[in-house]
Amino acid sequence: MIRFVVIGHRAVTTGDFKLDDISGGAGRLDVLVRCVNSAFFLSHSIRTNVELFLVLTGGSDAPKTVRFAGSELKYLNPDERSTSSLIRNALLKKVGSEEIRSSPGVYISRRSFSDMIEQLRGMPIIYLKEDGTDARDFAFPDNAVIVLGDDRDLTEEEEAAVMKCGPSKISLGPLSLHADHCIIVAHNEMDRQRGT
Amino acid sequence: MIRFVVIGHRAVTTGDFKLDDISGGAGRLDVLVRCVNSAFFLSHSIRTNVELFLVLTGGSDAPKTVRFAGSELKYLNPDERSTSSLIRNALLKKVGSEEIRSSPGVYISRRSFSDMIEQLRGMPIIYLKEDGTDARDFAFPDNAVIVLGDDRDLTEEEEAAVMKCGPSKISLGPLSLHADHCIIVAHNEMDRQRGT
Repeated sequence: MIRFVVIGHRAVTTGDFKLDDISGGAGRLDVLVRCVNSAFFLSHSIRTNVELFLVLTGGSDAPKTVRFAGSELKYLNPDERSTSSLIRNALLKKVGSEEIRSSPGVYISRRSFSDMIEQLRGMPIIYLKEDGTDARDFAFPDNAVIVLGDDRDLTEEEEAAVMKCGPSKISLGPLSLHADHCIIVAHNEMDRQRGT
Repeated sequence: MIRFVVIGHRAVTTGDFKLDDISGGAGRLDVLVRCVNSAFFLSHSIRTNVELFLVLTGGSDAPKTVRFAGSELKYLNPDERSTSSLIRNALLKKVGSEEIRSSPGVYISRRSFSDMIEQLRGMPIIYLKEDGTDARDFAFPDNAVIVLGDDRDLTEEEEAAVMKCGPSKISLGPLSLHADHCIIVAHNEMDRQRGT
């Protein structure tokens, strides 16, 4: 299993946004839905060995975490609008203290980023940073958990929480890339290392 | 300069489509706008050394080619909807035998794929194919022209036209990827080779 955790620093946590305005009114939700595309899509199939956590920390009902489970996903299409709709449906659900299912493979909970880190502690955490070890010189472990920000870096507090887990700091190349592009490059390296 | 040529096999050539329906009514224009994102966006800037040609071969006014020139681009945002709007504006222009400018860095012409190949002949053409040489074992030349299909492979006729140019057949990894993901992986390899 490969897990990605992406923090949406302004991403809305209520379902009252317009699908025409995911970049503006929905707090750069466009960045996050592109991460969904990057995490799961192969040319003719879905990566069933991937789980993606979108930690939404904006809006009036924060925090919430939308979890996409590759092995169960249905109704996922590559375009931004339809994925935004899946997320909006999840945000429209009434959610209490337990995670609930919104649609096949899409779950919603009130987990915060520190809840996520707590849950993932003990797994091999990989923190994508420009000054990290080159991904090509790093043996990606099974059950890797890859942590990254949306269009903003992790806050000092978020970074401190990650660093407490003793993560591997990994760089993907000489240029700083969008989060969804980072996921593609990381997948390519892991695909090559596994030889799948 | 790095050039990408992407063939949109069903992509519309008139501007009368809805921005809410780029995957359906616009003939998988969503694939092409994701290629625009992949070709140009860095974390905090635009790749000014890139030119992207979207060859649209669907709809009632085919063929048309939309050219994005990285060094001149303005008003490009990463989300699918706004890029689709730039393309729609280009398709709404009345275009004769000459290429015309639609907006800063966005041009439209009636060039077909074979016109494009004719124009690019003599440049080092790279054809992305699963059975090609591994990109990591290939020295990407200056002025590379990278040719790829949208969600469909090149037709036999298109492939024959490319093969006449004596292209380098290059593979990006063990799995077959979406066109926009291929562009990301190719950029990463070229970035590393240039050490930029």
